[in-house]
Amino acid sequence: MHHMREMISAHPDVQGNTNDVLIRCIEECYSCAQSCTSCADACLAEEMVDQLRQCIRLNLDCADICVASGALATRRTGSNESVILATLEACAQACRVCAEECERHASKHEHCRICAESCRRCEKACREAMQSISAGAGSRTESLVEPA
Amino acid sequence: MHHMREMISAHPDVQGNTNDVLIRCIEECYSCAQSCTSCADACLAEEMVDQLRQCIRLNLDCADICVASGALATRRTGSNESVILATLEACAQACRVCAEECERHASKHEHCRICAESCRRCEKACREAMQSISAGAGSRTESLVEPA
Amino acid sequence: MHHMREMISAHPDVQGNTNDVLIRCIEECYSCAQSCTSCADACLAEEMVDQLRQCIRLNLDCADICVASGALATRRTGSNESVILATLEACAQACRVCAEECERHASKHEHCRICAESCRRCEKACREAMQSISAGAGSRTESLVEPA
Amino acid sequence: MHHMREMISAHPDVQGNTNDVLIRCIEECYSCAQSCTSCADACLAEEMVDQLRQCIRLNLDCADICVASGALATRRTGSNESVILATLEACAQACRVCAEECERHASKHEHCRICAESCRRCEKACREAMQSISAGAGSRTESLVEPA
Repeated sequence: MHHMREMISAHPDVQGNTNDVLIRCIEECYSCAQSCTSCADACLAEEMVDQLRQCIRLNLDCADICVASGALATRRTGSNESVILATLEACAQACRVCAEECERHASKHEHCRICAESCRRCEKACREAMQSISAGAGSRTESLVEPA
Repeated sequence: MHHMREMISAHPDVQGNTNDVLIRCIEECYSCAQSCTSCADACLAEEMVDQLRQCIRLNLDCADICVASGALATRRTGSNESVILATLEACAQACRVCAEECERHASKHEHCRICAESCRRCEKACREAMQSISAGAGSRTESLVEPA
Repeated sequence: MHHMREMISAHPDVQGNTNDVLIRCIEECYSCAQSCTSCADACLAEEMVDQLRQCIRLNLDCADICVASGALATRRTGSNESVILATLEACAQACRVCAEECERHASKHEHCRICAESCRRCEKACREAMQSISAGAGSRTESLVEPA
Repeated sequence: MHHMREMISAHPDVQGNTNDVLIRCIEECYSCAQSCTSCADACLAEEMVDQLRQCIRLNLDCADICVASGALATRRTGSNESVILATLEACAQACRVCAEECERHASKHEHCRICAESCRRCEKACREAMQSISAGAGSRTESLVEPA
């Protein structure tokens, strides 16, 4: 992910003036998607898989919404404030619910402990990005660059 | 998509007692994802692509959130009411915004006219599914089967 | 999915001259993605989930590659014959492997029986689309319209 | 993405004995998905968007197959050697074709230059992962851990 700021900085509408809070959110979305996909698979391999059914489902939900949110936040160059805000809200909720379930298994399963942390970071990053977008709402430029 | 009701009906938690409003929502999500992917590509092939930039972006946003919503709604067997409701809300908003943009080009571009209709159907189906989930909230079973 | 042919028919590069084999493939990809997502969730709800771990994984793999294939096939307007052919090959293989596993559980679990059928249809549709693309290779137009 | 090795290392079938070539491939897949999504959006914002149509399409194709490949490679715990190999082959081809197109615009558009590099890294990582999987084929364990 090391090239994300460089990429977004090269966008004609951004021109070097990046919104680092949004970039961090994008990074956390993709990272959390991978963590949740990985945790679901690890849960499936656990002997007591029957106690991890809900954890697997929430992992899959979270992974799906994280991938979509990462893509939408990356494409954050339009006038669709309401769409990106609603998507990040859904992502933050999916991360919170998944983190709560993973935390219940964290002492037994290291992958759940790591995944819970990843979800919490992503939830926080989504909330901060939402604030940064709301603060800069109005023009295409303001929502992509740092709010004043 | 003809097997969707049959599939969901065979789910151990549903046992034939399907929530048809939710199934319709799932169908519309996958259908709208395809329409938006197709409309974005058709817009890219239009001579006046420079006037369709925003339409393409909104199509891509809508396709991404529709795929995620379709998957989450399909996995609608958990206790995550808040996550599915927030996701369907994001999807309904993405559909509305995309429909509004496509409608502006509908008289010139048949693909935009068809895509706008697909988005409007999906928006409506998401709103109805949200109501059906809220009404049946509480137990795993109620949220998957018809609310009383 | 009823609007898919109408949508693709409205594409400026197609102009009514649709490749129905490719359209059927797109439909089956989205349909199979939904079946596999649904079957994975139903398997997770079965009492003997520990015997369905591999089925769940293959369902998830198949769903992911089907969604990607459906999108790529929808965007089938470029000169990337090699990419779409390799993607449909991966999709056909994922469908075959998932169908084989689901068939092992088909007598016990109705959702596995239906999902296996969905995978088999998609595998077949991918193979036929690959033939139609190879036959029409060369120009953008030929690969989207019926091969002569 | 910093937690990916930690996550996979915690998988019950891996137990600390990670296949670092595969982990690098997963990282590059998610990273390339983001780069391509970002490059497509930046291309859409360029004044001469009409000359970047094919670049946008190939970016979108590459992003879709990269997300699917990242998920499948993350779930690389099953006996589906043929599916993961075919998927990584499709991903490597999508990356190569996208890189070639982006390289044509690299001198004019910095985002295309960066994206081309991301695609080349991902192509290479996929090829290396394919070799590592083929070498370790046979058992579930061997394909996830370092081939001897």
